[in-house]
Amino acid sequence: MSVYLHDIPLPEAKTRLESALRQSGLWHVLGTEILPLDERVVGRVLAEPVWARVSSPHYHASAMDGFAVRAVETNGALATAPLVLMLGKQARYVDTGDPLPDGFDAVIPIENVEALDARGELSPEIRDPTSVRIRASVAPWSHVRPLGEDMVATQLVLPAGQVLRPVDLGAIAAAGHMQVSVTRKPRVAILPTGTELVPVGSDLKPGDILEYNSLVMAAQVNAMGAQATRFPITPDDFNLICQHVQQTAQEFDLILLNAGSSAGAEDFSARVVEKLGTLLVHGVAVRPGHPVIMGFVNRESKAGEAPDSQLPTPNSQVPIIGVPGYPVSAALTVEIFVEPLLARWLGRRPAELPTVSASLTRKIASPGGDDDYVRVAVGKVGERLLAAPLSRGAGVISSLVRADGLVVLPRGTQGLEAGERVLVHLYRQPADLERTIFCIGSHDLTLDLLAQFLAEHDRRFASANVGSLGGLVALRRGEAHLAGSHLLDPETGEYNLSYIKQYLPGVPVHLVALVGREQGLIVRRNNPKNIKGLEDLVRSEVEFVNRQRGAGTRVLLDYHLNLKGIAPEGILGYNQEEYTHLGVAAAVASGRADCGLGIAAAAKALDLDFVPLFQERYDLVIPKVYAGSDLLAPLFEILHDDIFRQSVAALPGYDVEPMGKLIAEV
Amino acid sequence: MSVYLHDIPLPEAKTRLESALRQSGLWHVLGTEILPLDERVVGRVLAEPVWARVSSPHYHASAMDGFAVRAVETNGALATAPLVLMLGKQARYVDTGDPLPDGFDAVIPIENVEALDARGELSPEIRDPTSVRIRASVAPWSHVRPLGEDMVATQLVLPAGQVLRPVDLGAIAAAGHMQVSVTRKPRVAILPTGTELVPVGSDLKPGDILEYNSLVMAAQVNAMGAQATRFPITPDDFNLICQHVQQTAQEFDLILLNAGSSAGAEDFSARVVEKLGTLLVHGVAVRPGHPVIMGFVNRESKAGEAPDSQLPTPNSQVPIIGVPGYPVSAALTVEIFVEPLLARWLGRRPAELPTVSASLTRKIASPGGDDDYVRVAVGKVGERLLAAPLSRGAGVISSLVRADGLVVLPRGTQGLEAGERVLVHLYRQPADLERTIFCIGSHDLTLDLLAQFLAEHDRRFASANVGSLGGLVALRRGEAHLAGSHLLDPETGEYNLSYIKQYLPGVPVHLVALVGREQGLIVRRNNPKNIKGLEDLVRSEVEFVNRQRGAGTRVLLDYHLNLKGIAPEGILGYNQEEYTHLGVAAAVASGRADCGLGIAAAAKALDLDFVPLFQERYDLVIPKVYAGSDLLAPLFEILHDDIFRQSVAALPGYDVEPMGKLIAEV
Repeated sequence: MSVYLHDIPLPEAKTRLESALRQSGLWHVLGTEILPLDERVVGRVLAEPVWARVSSPHYHASAMDGFAVRAVETNGALATAPLVLMLGKQARYVDTGDPLPDGFDAVIPIENVEALDARGELSPEIRDPTSVRIRASVAPWSHVRPLGEDMVATQLVLPAGQVLRPVDLGAIAAAGHMQVSVTRKPRVAILPTGTELVPVGSDLKPGDILEYNSLVMAAQVNAMGAQATRFPITPDDFNLICQHVQQTAQEFDLILLNAGSSAGAEDFSARVVEKLGTLLVHGVAVRPGHPVIMGFVNRESKAGEAPDSQLPTPNSQVPIIGVPGYPVSAALTVEIFVEPLLARWLGRRPAELPTVSASLTRKIASPGGDDDYVRVAVGKVGERLLAAPLSRGAGVISSLVRADGLVVLPRGTQGLEAGERVLVHLYRQPADLERTIFCIGSHDLTLDLLAQFLAEHDRRFASANVGSLGGLVALRRGEAHLAGSHLLDPETGEYNLSYIKQYLPGVPVHLVALVGREQGLIVRRNNPKNIKGLEDLVRSEVEFVNRQRGAGTRVLLDYHLNLKGIAPEGILGYNQEEYTHLGVAAAVASGRADCGLGIAAAAKALDLDFVPLFQERYDLVIPKVYAGSDLLAPLFEILHDDIFRQSVAALPGYDVEPMGKLIAEV
Repeated sequence: MSVYLHDIPLPEAKTRLESALRQSGLWHVLGTEILPLDERVVGRVLAEPVWARVSSPHYHASAMDGFAVRAVETNGALATAPLVLMLGKQARYVDTGDPLPDGFDAVIPIENVEALDARGELSPEIRDPTSVRIRASVAPWSHVRPLGEDMVATQLVLPAGQVLRPVDLGAIAAAGHMQVSVTRKPRVAILPTGTELVPVGSDLKPGDILEYNSLVMAAQVNAMGAQATRFPITPDDFNLICQHVQQTAQEFDLILLNAGSSAGAEDFSARVVEKLGTLLVHGVAVRPGHPVIMGFVNRESKAGEAPDSQLPTPNSQVPIIGVPGYPVSAALTVEIFVEPLLARWLGRRPAELPTVSASLTRKIASPGGDDDYVRVAVGKVGERLLAAPLSRGAGVISSLVRADGLVVLPRGTQGLEAGERVLVHLYRQPADLERTIFCIGSHDLTLDLLAQFLAEHDRRFASANVGSLGGLVALRRGEAHLAGSHLLDPETGEYNLSYIKQYLPGVPVHLVALVGREQGLIVRRNNPKNIKGLEDLVRSEVEFVNRQRGAGTRVLLDYHLNLKGIAPEGILGYNQEEYTHLGVAAAVASGRADCGLGIAAAAKALDLDFVPLFQERYDLVIPKVYAGSDLLAPLFEILHDDIFRQSVAALPGYDVEPMGKLIAEV
């Protein structure tokens, strides 16, 4: 079979794997097992249809507590002309579920009879009457559960391939079974490789990479119904990797070999597969995740097996998938390639995500040569369902955590414009999207706290950081429920009002204060360059990191630079842009810059020093139409919640006094 | 607290339970536990928000295999004017993930450089060059994953209340954690009671009831994230039940006491709760399931605790729910009352089913006094989503298995008409409904086999048995994709054609043969009443069971009765109606009738004798618009599949010769 070192299209890669598996006799259920029918079989897949062995009920059962009668003997009973039925011969007491006595064909509920004693008088003690009086006739089979009402012996109860749910267990039991035949769980070995990898929880030095892909992949594989086993990290040593792959091949149905799947100097995976078996695919035109490897590893033949058998047998080869190392690529590789294979082996349908149609909030560029999987946050703003593209970085696992779904740009698509309708494959129930508050605008650390408090109030808070002006533009476009903003008007010294008038003409909004906060220069610990104010930014040995255009902090900087007559061109790093306060702090912490303008909490978070310069107000801009909505009601509750205020006040540099104040209705 | 023996409205019952739990300090998360971060925590609920301890990446990392450079030193490089950078000083080789060496600020991917040897010549061996030549400048931070690209220390990674998914584990690991704080699983005791109950798999005698409610409820409770423990069956003995409830109260967070919750002579549950604690609710206006009990059982105080404490403490009382005995009632009680409580204890959102709007295929009657939960099958016929009400019987667990969702008729609703729009709370993904074939009409045993074969072809087969004529009416109303029909025209001796013309005027249909089959009299084993033909039906000691009006079998009966001049009025049981062949056979097997007209397979299924009388053809009536659809394509494949034909031929009384033949296009 030919070897590809260059990307092939996704459908071709899938087809190639499938036909190789067919040839190897591995494209069907791996095996079945008989399990006792107990609650642990939930989620397992029926290997065979379940047919009813017995009928249910298996006798005519009384459906009520009451008296079994012969319907024909009740004929003529009326409210004005009651009939008396003698206990024993004409009526017999039955509890719910009791068999109908032979020769009886209906039940009169206990509340519809009058119990009489031996003298024919109404008796207060219903359990020992001599006769009963009825004031209405009953039809045959009234209040009787006839034999087979639920199921009749021989009928189909559940088809093969059913993923068992709790109620299914009841039906299988009712059908007379005490065991169930389910498909065997595929055994999946997960082998992390890489000299740079360190286990979860390690103390980190530069160059160390936390090995958590095996954790995510094992959890995915288990959730798909298979049985994952994680192996320890193997360093980048060709022979060692070969040895470990060969060992796992003896005992597992599938090997996931993580990382080393690219074409770099220490990427051994393809060579390992070539040496130990057959390399089918090296590189798939899918993004993220293109350096995927697929192939087979030969099992060492055991004693008694013919070692020179010409045809591969299901036991002679083990499929292996070389999974790329970036965490988003790894997780998507499992979804795209491993899930359908496990579904086939388990005898169930492949997973299918629910879909919704949504409008893109911004343009997506795509190279066009790949099937491109774009993670999006999805929320409903007004009547429009919106999909906001998240970070495209294959290393950004938090983008997968924040993703509400995926948009797939098929190979050949050059990209999509803002506003285009896209089909989103949802990770969540569509109803969840109705609980999502979209906040686009300036970033503040208190928004993370707000997100946590909102989660306790049954709201999801999706925030995108595009700066204050970007937030107002998003509101104008109807792409957010609210925006965080701290835009100083240099003319009036006021916050936000003049910008709202300019950017949101004709949109009634409530301007609500969130916090007062200190802005200043975030500097390295102990402030080694002795930076005291904006004047120091023009020193040639001071490298600055800025916020992006439209950010309130940048407006504030420009305002004060202007006041002091400092030219931006004189500031080294003025054009280096970060999108959040924490991003600025991280740039300083890493040594990429010496200082940046930001808030005290960001400096504190990364254990940096802070030179306070200005006080400012950070507001929430909320279109009136959302200010009164159920969706945002918990937000206003939280702004007046003491515990929230205390939590914010505990962060350095925050003043909670203005919190929740309605500054203006514009 | 007052005791109610009569049904109270559902919202009131829920409120009463909630406020009692609040008072007892039991209306919040039960507890937390710290677990190692491994794949087993998937599905657990975060007890606390996860904040990033470290940034990820925690250093500036190369995003590619290539050469770290200073961007400023690449300025001016052009295709026509390449620049040479000396290895070591100006460029350093880095693998993907390697830290950017101090003082470097960009990476040039390996494929974009030319490696030169010591003489300044292009070297074939890239790993040991002396310098590299570049033909384009790069911007600062190109192909670098800056510190904190994924997450910055202190930021919110996941809010409390998150139900952990596989990717979440990766983010928690990336954030520097190796443990996770999750909510404790509530411990739920499930106590089945009832002298009539026998364990799953028992040989059954009349009156025995298989105890599988505990199995279903345990599976439900576990699926909801709690930990169920099933106890053995306790017979109906007040003291014994008290003793067992009191014992479980010591160790569990919630007791589900199954059955005995009504007001009958052997319904002890309410009395047990009154004796051992506090009865809050007895009877909820919900259908099915109204005899629900809610209350508290007092824990025996342990040594060291003040036994006469005035205020209940979280440890002094255990909530108990008396669950009704019918299996559908039991399962719905767990969904309606137990799930929200477990959600609260687990700190997650209550479960919410996806909803769709659909049209009712037939009228639903409702008493109006209850919140009425109606199980429905849902499918898409043409462009309309339809909801077909299933059996209302609380004992019919198969209706819950077949249900695609629930329609809730709120208290006060008197019922709904056919065609009304209803909101369906779906048990399935909406996409599943697109794979559903609705077959309404006459019943035949081969339809069960067909359902199994269709399941293997990714189709769900929902069949409703309303007789042949009912099926044609359903087709006319656009409520089915196909109908099974075996209607003999007494005038022509032909099957189905004249009926189609009469009932489906103007609807182009394909009439496709399914099977030829034998109809005859289903009689008891050894035919004790020596029934030989229709003439015997008028004998006074022979009780007949009929099929419903519109059933093809009834048309066949009437045709032959007429031929023989036998008056229906002379037949005992002519008005006893069953809806399926198996129903007729079950009536004979149980002794409810001596004979009925039906097919041989039904007699065989219940081990009865069969007196063959006529041959008939059973067809599928398929509107042309569906005959060519993707949805039905697998059906036509199966009709020509040898294994299917053999499976049908193996049933007694079937002729597969006509199978799949296009009888006519009408």
